[in-house]
Amino acid sequence: MDIQQKTINTIRTLSADMVQKANSGHPGAPMGMAAMAYAVWADAMQHNPADPKWRNRDRFVLSNGHASALMYSLLHLFGYGLTMDDIKQFRQWGSKTPGHPEIETAGVETTTGPLGQGVANAVGFAIAETMLAAKFNRPDFPVVDHRVYAFCGDGCMMEGIASEAASLAGTLKLGKLTLLYDDNDISIEGNTDIAMREDVGARFAAYGWQVLNVADGNDPQQVLAAIAEARRDERPSLIVCKTIIGYGCPAKQGTSGVHGSPLGEDNLLATKRTLGMPEDSFHVDEDVYAHLRETAARGAQREQEWKDMMARYAKVYPELAREYEDWYAMKLPEGLCEDPELWAYEGKIATRATSGTMINRLAKRLPNLVGGSADLAPSNNTYIKEGGDYSAENRGGRNLHFGVREHAMAAICNGIALHGGLRVFCGTFFVFSDYMKHAIRMSAIMKLPVTYVLTHDSIGVGEDGATHEPIEHLAGLRAIPDVQVFRPADGKETTAAWLSALSSNGPTCLVLTRQGLPQYGEKGTEAFKGGYVLEDCEGAPDVLLMASGSEVEQCVAAKAALAGEGIAARVISMPCMELFLRQDKAYQEAVMPAAIRARVAVEAGATMPWYRFTGLDGEVIGLDHFGASAPAGILFKEYGFTAENVAAAAKKVLGK
Amino acid sequence: MDIQQKTINTIRTLSADMVQKANSGHPGAPMGMAAMAYAVWADAMQHNPADPKWRNRDRFVLSNGHASALMYSLLHLFGYGLTMDDIKQFRQWGSKTPGHPEIETAGVETTTGPLGQGVANAVGFAIAETMLAAKFNRPDFPVVDHRVYAFCGDGCMMEGIASEAASLAGTLKLGKLTLLYDDNDISIEGNTDIAMREDVGARFAAYGWQVLNVADGNDPQQVLAAIAEARRDERPSLIVCKTIIGYGCPAKQGTSGVHGSPLGEDNLLATKRTLGMPEDSFHVDEDVYAHLRETAARGAQREQEWKDMMARYAKVYPELAREYEDWYAMKLPEGLCEDPELWAYEGKIATRATSGTMINRLAKRLPNLVGGSADLAPSNNTYIKEGGDYSAENRGGRNLHFGVREHAMAAICNGIALHGGLRVFCGTFFVFSDYMKHAIRMSAIMKLPVTYVLTHDSIGVGEDGATHEPIEHLAGLRAIPDVQVFRPADGKETTAAWLSALSSNGPTCLVLTRQGLPQYGEKGTEAFKGGYVLEDCEGAPDVLLMASGSEVEQCVAAKAALAGEGIAARVISMPCMELFLRQDKAYQEAVMPAAIRARVAVEAGATMPWYRFTGLDGEVIGLDHFGASAPAGILFKEYGFTAENVAAAAKKVLGK
Repeated sequence: MDIQQKTINTIRTLSADMVQKANSGHPGAPMGMAAMAYAVWADAMQHNPADPKWRNRDRFVLSNGHASALMYSLLHLFGYGLTMDDIKQFRQWGSKTPGHPEIETAGVETTTGPLGQGVANAVGFAIAETMLAAKFNRPDFPVVDHRVYAFCGDGCMMEGIASEAASLAGTLKLGKLTLLYDDNDISIEGNTDIAMREDVGARFAAYGWQVLNVADGNDPQQVLAAIAEARRDERPSLIVCKTIIGYGCPAKQGTSGVHGSPLGEDNLLATKRTLGMPEDSFHVDEDVYAHLRETAARGAQREQEWKDMMARYAKVYPELAREYEDWYAMKLPEGLCEDPELWAYEGKIATRATSGTMINRLAKRLPNLVGGSADLAPSNNTYIKEGGDYSAENRGGRNLHFGVREHAMAAICNGIALHGGLRVFCGTFFVFSDYMKHAIRMSAIMKLPVTYVLTHDSIGVGEDGATHEPIEHLAGLRAIPDVQVFRPADGKETTAAWLSALSSNGPTCLVLTRQGLPQYGEKGTEAFKGGYVLEDCEGAPDVLLMASGSEVEQCVAAKAALAGEGIAARVISMPCMELFLRQDKAYQEAVMPAAIRARVAVEAGATMPWYRFTGLDGEVIGLDHFGASAPAGILFKEYGFTAENVAAAAKKVLGK
Repeated sequence: MDIQQKTINTIRTLSADMVQKANSGHPGAPMGMAAMAYAVWADAMQHNPADPKWRNRDRFVLSNGHASALMYSLLHLFGYGLTMDDIKQFRQWGSKTPGHPEIETAGVETTTGPLGQGVANAVGFAIAETMLAAKFNRPDFPVVDHRVYAFCGDGCMMEGIASEAASLAGTLKLGKLTLLYDDNDISIEGNTDIAMREDVGARFAAYGWQVLNVADGNDPQQVLAAIAEARRDERPSLIVCKTIIGYGCPAKQGTSGVHGSPLGEDNLLATKRTLGMPEDSFHVDEDVYAHLRETAARGAQREQEWKDMMARYAKVYPELAREYEDWYAMKLPEGLCEDPELWAYEGKIATRATSGTMINRLAKRLPNLVGGSADLAPSNNTYIKEGGDYSAENRGGRNLHFGVREHAMAAICNGIALHGGLRVFCGTFFVFSDYMKHAIRMSAIMKLPVTYVLTHDSIGVGEDGATHEPIEHLAGLRAIPDVQVFRPADGKETTAAWLSALSSNGPTCLVLTRQGLPQYGEKGTEAFKGGYVLEDCEGAPDVLLMASGSEVEQCVAAKAALAGEGIAARVISMPCMELFLRQDKAYQEAVMPAAIRARVAVEAGATMPWYRFTGLDGEVIGLDHFGASAPAGILFKEYGFTAENVAAAAKKVLGK
């Protein structure tokens, strides 16, 4: 057996051993894709295992993340610092080798597992590369010049998010993107024929991709020949690799039986014999390590050449070189938060409009801020006015046109954020945050500072009716760990929300009104604490009125009305519950004294999030039913979002 | 102007008038699609406006629901009972003409607006038709024999859900499905070229569809010729109709300016002049009504012929005719809930397994129960063992293989439920309920009794890790209005959940464990109340312990431990919060006496939903962070889901 074949077989047996020891996992896909992986990692891909964060490395995405054992075999064998002990801890508590690849493990570019997400992440990587290349590259200085290789299986191909991303990638002619499709004809319920008889290659050709076929995905030379074709074309390329799931396991290969459970000791032994490999567990021949050390050395040399070039670049283009460092460092300009222009708003304005103003103010100060909308830019106010339109023809544009593809949009933004060098936001109607819910979750799991601009945030949508009026969405997003959900009440809170988003190490959802809102008298910076006393009464309050966004207005009006009846009310604005709950107990107590049990919360959405603040003795004025089609003012009135109703609830909780 | 053209122009002006009067809405798409709509409604479609619920009618779906004014124009002109007053109340409070079409309006087959959903609903209609035809049709008795016509725009075509649905429709050779694509090159941000340069026709051909092109979508004869082709083919057909958005408006047609706002009085007048139509608002010539009355009469005659056939059918096949009525009536067999076989479980079993048992027990008793999974049937336990596999070759199969297409799956199930005649469920991992979130919302808005089987419901997933462990999902689904979320603690609660799902007039989510759970001593029927006292103490309780699903076990154990320390604890099982909150106050008070403030809730998910029961003085043991990859038992222990921790929390809230 030559060293190439031995390495490929080692990837197979190491992966199968991992799954066997953990008694959990997916051996089939790693065994089927081992030769594809070898071709990419040992030959095609520009990477330096000694420096997994080298900025100009090619990116590798394992979209079919259940094949994590493949990823870990590669990281171990290529010398990414994943030890054999780590390998043996596959899927165990506290290990670097969790069930699906997570970015905390060096060499993993994106956390995958939920199918299709990785394909869209890869599109994001490829977009980021073109944007940064347009900005920084100069003749003889290909500062940003790398490719993206993504693996995916039948499952990814069936997911709509991958279709959306692929259609956009074709439109944008992302020529450095190469998708290798593990075409093994098997999914969990059996042969893919039962659910998918489409011609995947023809579909991608329709998207504007180059489509290449590899008859034998077990032959790394065939895979490399296709990759060479991919590199010659300006379109993104799909390489359809015919493979056999669980290749090497005589009793199970080519069946769904090898997909998601260990081979079993007997089958594992038979596999090793079939492949001509030693029978002991976790066996790696020293010459396999030595072979891959050569690859690593080539990678290290390529990085050194790039570093030498960057040193010359810094001399020829000192300003650009500084900008390059600034963009990747993600530092905010000094004094940004204190810049008075960012806090200035006047009159009745929708928070989607104040957000649009902020985007344009920020775009001037943060040249690496890019973003776009799922075909709703004029409504979401997400357009950077002097930013130009990003397209196949204009890589320097800062406005992305995602099309009506919310799910891919969010996952593409995850890819852009993961790439480094850029700050990214994206927008749609709040109700359609549903369509991209899982990608928002992935932003949170990976702690990516993607900013979601979600406008038309309630029954304030009005005439579009129930289908377009968010109800449960605030609860749903707030329940995701590590997401900041901001629903600002006016311009200054919008500014605080945006600044908080920019300095957060996780995603932020900005939930913004369609309709105009008044400006209040706060400084604005109070909103950084998530919740604060917006308007206080004289002396101790009888009742606490709390709200977010547009319903702050009814609370302020109710407070005035109650004062006329001798009832002292405090108005608490709560633009971001997560931040308020992160403040120390003394601050929380100062805002909401535990002794005051008369509490009313008001929000035009599901009541669920507010009970932790109102308790068993308070009242929540919210919406636990769907909305309707009518002018917004009528809906607010019909559903009880009026100062009168808030005041009545206050009296009720006071027993008056 | 001939009567056909006059009718088409009337659809245009009536639609534009509606939007103008409401000062809100979308005139462009109705004006562009008017001729397509005329061709389908006046000629191709089998429908009887006098009986919108005729079971064998062709179904019409307006997937691009923002073109609602088109729908209302058609319903009015064809005599569906929508009056001119209704038309003038477009988008107003309490009207039958909301911003997007809703099924409450007679003649609207499915509520649309969120893009892409309607395409998948249409696939569901087409699947249901084939299933029912396979069951009931006999030679010379085409009892179930109708087509499905769906309109969609560029937005629908970009959405992943439509891609998923179309791929499945091709695989399943749903020949009676015809999709008419309003190919107008315009979306909100401008020309579709900025975001979509794919060849849509070639893509659908790759899915296995027949693709037909209509060069002039304003010519009803061309549209009808294509429909005739569609009828001759066994594949589903896509008819790509080249149209002009806002056709007839000289200043704005063919631009995004005509998409989502009124034309303006001047442009509206200019449009009427250009189209050769009277200038007064809401004008309909009497001969237009008369012309369409002829269509209605033809439809009424066709329904009468069908009824005559059904009368003969009842004589020749009396048993089948009875079954036909039973299937459509959706009545449950008498005594179903009392059937002891449904309540029998023994030993430690995962609720996904008890659900699988229930599905098979129910399948024997409910012959019109069908369902499937997004390629996870063996894990979701959703397979009907003697049901056979539904496919292009076997329309009698009861097991649907949706492929890894969660979003389309849910929306297809909405279509099946809307069709009538069938009960439907679908399954995936709970964490991937995210992918179909919006379709679940649509089930709720339409009050469709779709049952969602969501297994692997918590960190109990174990080794698959954070990406596969639901955290926020219980909160997210519970916050949707009109959804029942059941998380049963054992077999009998699973039975109650399934029976509740079957008798509900809305969707039910069954949230089920991967891991085995013990069986408790309850009758089972208590769970119909959503929450109940599972184990009570002697005398008045000191503390209330409440939980759902797998965490009931820790509460029961904690109760015993606390009893040893002289603390009286009551264990409340809460499989369905929505049902508990629907019980009368006396029952709720009996289960959770207001005076007892020492309360502990335990659930392996986000804490948010529980504060309404624990208040400011209680404790919630939950997960407001992501999970990890490790054996499930270790995760439960590491994250504090132990009897010891529950008992400690109880003592804490008691101040001990």
